[in-house]
Amino acid sequence: MPEAEIIAVGSELLTPQRIDTNSLFLTEQLNLLGIEVVRKSIVGDNRDRLAGAVREAHGRAAVVILCGGLGPTEDDITREAVADALGREIALNADVVAAIEARFRRFRRVMAERNRKQADVIAGAEVLPNPRGTAPGQWIEDGGGVIVLLPGPPAEMKPLFTEQCAGRLRARFPSQAIGVRFWRVAGMGESSLDELIAPVYTRYANPVVTLLTGGGDVQIHMRARCATLDEAERLLDELSAHLEPLLGDRLYSRNGDPMEIVTGKMLRELGETVAVAESCTGGMLGGRITSVAGSSDYFRGGFLVYTDSMKTELLGIDAALIEAHTAVSDAVAREMAERARAKTQSSWGVSVTGYAGPDGGTRDDPVGTVYIGVAGAHETEVRRFLFPPIDREHVRTFAAHTALDLLRRRMLRIGTSGLFFSRE
Amino acid sequence: MPEAEIIAVGSELLTPQRIDTNSLFLTEQLNLLGIEVVRKSIVGDNRDRLAGAVREAHGRAAVVILCGGLGPTEDDITREAVADALGREIALNADVVAAIEARFRRFRRVMAERNRKQADVIAGAEVLPNPRGTAPGQWIEDGGGVIVLLPGPPAEMKPLFTEQCAGRLRARFPSQAIGVRFWRVAGMGESSLDELIAPVYTRYANPVVTLLTGGGDVQIHMRARCATLDEAERLLDELSAHLEPLLGDRLYSRNGDPMEIVTGKMLRELGETVAVAESCTGGMLGGRITSVAGSSDYFRGGFLVYTDSMKTELLGIDAALIEAHTAVSDAVAREMAERARAKTQSSWGVSVTGYAGPDGGTRDDPVGTVYIGVAGAHETEVRRFLFPPIDREHVRTFAAHTALDLLRRRMLRIGTSGLFFSRE
Repeated sequence: MPEAEIIAVGSELLTPQRIDTNSLFLTEQLNLLGIEVVRKSIVGDNRDRLAGAVREAHGRAAVVILCGGLGPTEDDITREAVADALGREIALNADVVAAIEARFRRFRRVMAERNRKQADVIAGAEVLPNPRGTAPGQWIEDGGGVIVLLPGPPAEMKPLFTEQCAGRLRARFPSQAIGVRFWRVAGMGESSLDELIAPVYTRYANPVVTLLTGGGDVQIHMRARCATLDEAERLLDELSAHLEPLLGDRLYSRNGDPMEIVTGKMLRELGETVAVAESCTGGMLGGRITSVAGSSDYFRGGFLVYTDSMKTELLGIDAALIEAHTAVSDAVAREMAERARAKTQSSWGVSVTGYAGPDGGTRDDPVGTVYIGVAGAHETEVRRFLFPPIDREHVRTFAAHTALDLLRRRMLRIGTSGLFFSRE
Repeated sequence: MPEAEIIAVGSELLTPQRIDTNSLFLTEQLNLLGIEVVRKSIVGDNRDRLAGAVREAHGRAAVVILCGGLGPTEDDITREAVADALGREIALNADVVAAIEARFRRFRRVMAERNRKQADVIAGAEVLPNPRGTAPGQWIEDGGGVIVLLPGPPAEMKPLFTEQCAGRLRARFPSQAIGVRFWRVAGMGESSLDELIAPVYTRYANPVVTLLTGGGDVQIHMRARCATLDEAERLLDELSAHLEPLLGDRLYSRNGDPMEIVTGKMLRELGETVAVAESCTGGMLGGRITSVAGSSDYFRGGFLVYTDSMKTELLGIDAALIEAHTAVSDAVAREMAERARAKTQSSWGVSVTGYAGPDGGTRDDPVGTVYIGVAGAHETEVRRFLFPPIDREHVRTFAAHTALDLLRRRMLRIGTSGLFFSRE
């Protein structure tokens, strides 16, 4: 199996504040191509040190991927260092200059002189066009090995790898077939999910199962490695058939789509719309729904009612009701959802009100308590949750995610009995 | 100045799921001792590969710190690999065996046979007692350099470093003090900021300046290294005095606080409040303001008016006005800000409307165009921006950040002429 090393370039990655995370994406992609990552290095903006690191890695591994140091400033020395390591020349590439100038023109600006540096290309390198930034990537074959230069910003690096490098690597290193599944599960934490499914997946050495957590849900990655893709898919089918009954309706995505995409597709297919009324999330739920391109097809709008008086003034909720039950209550969540729906003439109204912390909360409703309401044409459902109050962002993220999950369940007409953080 | 390399050991750190974060703590501690980290490496549980990495690092740097691979399983090969690299023997240390046995007795268990391996000590190494775990650290002086072996679990590694290594390193490398500054700049991109300030900071070898970008702003890190902290601070003061006039009112944070904290503090000090009306950001602006604990002191709420009809129905904006100017216009941004302010009786109303992409936009207002309005008691200001349309999240993040910056500028009664992405 071919081996790769990843070199992250940048002095900021050698400070206590910053860490290289690009290599996680690159490792995942390389593994999918059947290429193993055997070392990662982080080197500062120092031409000699970086040239040394490139020379060593190139001597050891078939694939060396460098990330960062392609910017326009004096600190950006990756091109020069790789040229030094390989004993090659560098020359300004007129096509790349033209592409950078065109990019500046598109933003109605003039290319700064220093950006010309980004058009320097190592002798013998293939230019990898980067439509999302000024610096193109470079692909160099040298003595049986491959060296790839990628920009550091993830928004440029990731598509550049997927579009320009994955196919080239697959052709250069034909390997075993690897089949993957990427599921997402809502309504339970990582350790309880693992307790539930480990008895099944640990019986298999192939596929390999990995659980990942973040953003309010848990992801299940399955990877089968076989001689043919058919065989890999067959193994994945077998494992999937054992896992699905255990997960039930908590399994919400079989292709890695996040919750806002899954619920958005359902709304579009049903021809329905949604509006929100947010208190403790303060806009995060709407922000998440509208992160999807085309969400104006089903998202109409909503109300940020962060204070008690806003709940009364913008939504018309009776101040006496808030006084009687507090703003973090079943009664207020219900009114928020119903009024958001009615005032926007939407099919659905979703509300969130809770204690995100670090202060606030009551004896019965401590920090981490969130009431989520979903109002439809016939019925309004409110559920109370107690999310782990690790910090404010954690509670808010879980709340926004769970609000979308409750909407999903209503649209599918399935219950909420399996929800892990739910409290009656 | 002494230089250090950090080697994190563990095959799990070469998967897409895990990352080495121990090195952040170690970097911070080493910097405080005046030792610079010049390279970090991540190596799997492979004895030959790790021995090679240790040999290289020891040849380059005065200090090499290894983290991980001291456990009791067959995978744990750090002791053996370092002995290989230095050509030294390994021997079971009776005192360490006794300490491990005592630890097991304390937990009313018997030491497993495999744990004896953790008592292997490299010839000439000093044992660093680890009361929080079974594996002690090891300190080795070799040819003018130092090699330190630390356990991987942070709860063991961190106190072991502080209690056993910091003092030894200070004695071994009597060194300098390090002073740092962490500024944040709004309203311009990284390359234009660099173009502006590089002529100043490149005149200094000390302090060292690094620029970082992300989330809609640029961060300036300055680090000065001197015999005393007073001297370092004096150098930082001198550089700061040269940079400040260039940055002017774009310098919004001198302590690393992000924009939502800076504007939140200003609102609280002024006793003022803010409300939002969001179209293309769909709640991100409110979500960002309310990510700050205690933001209910100054954030009242707002309106998510994602569609034209919501702008009319929730805010009462004349449909004919939208028809005449489109929803992405100076006129509509102005109405959104003023009406959000009036309907919530807030001191300020902030509005965002634009084309986040990937589709949409017009010939004159392409994707990336965002109008931002700030309404106060006496005046409403609307500015038009063209943010780099790298992707939808990028445009929305810049828009939310810039909206807060415009509010900051209004509160400070400073102009907007220096805003880089602004378009008239």
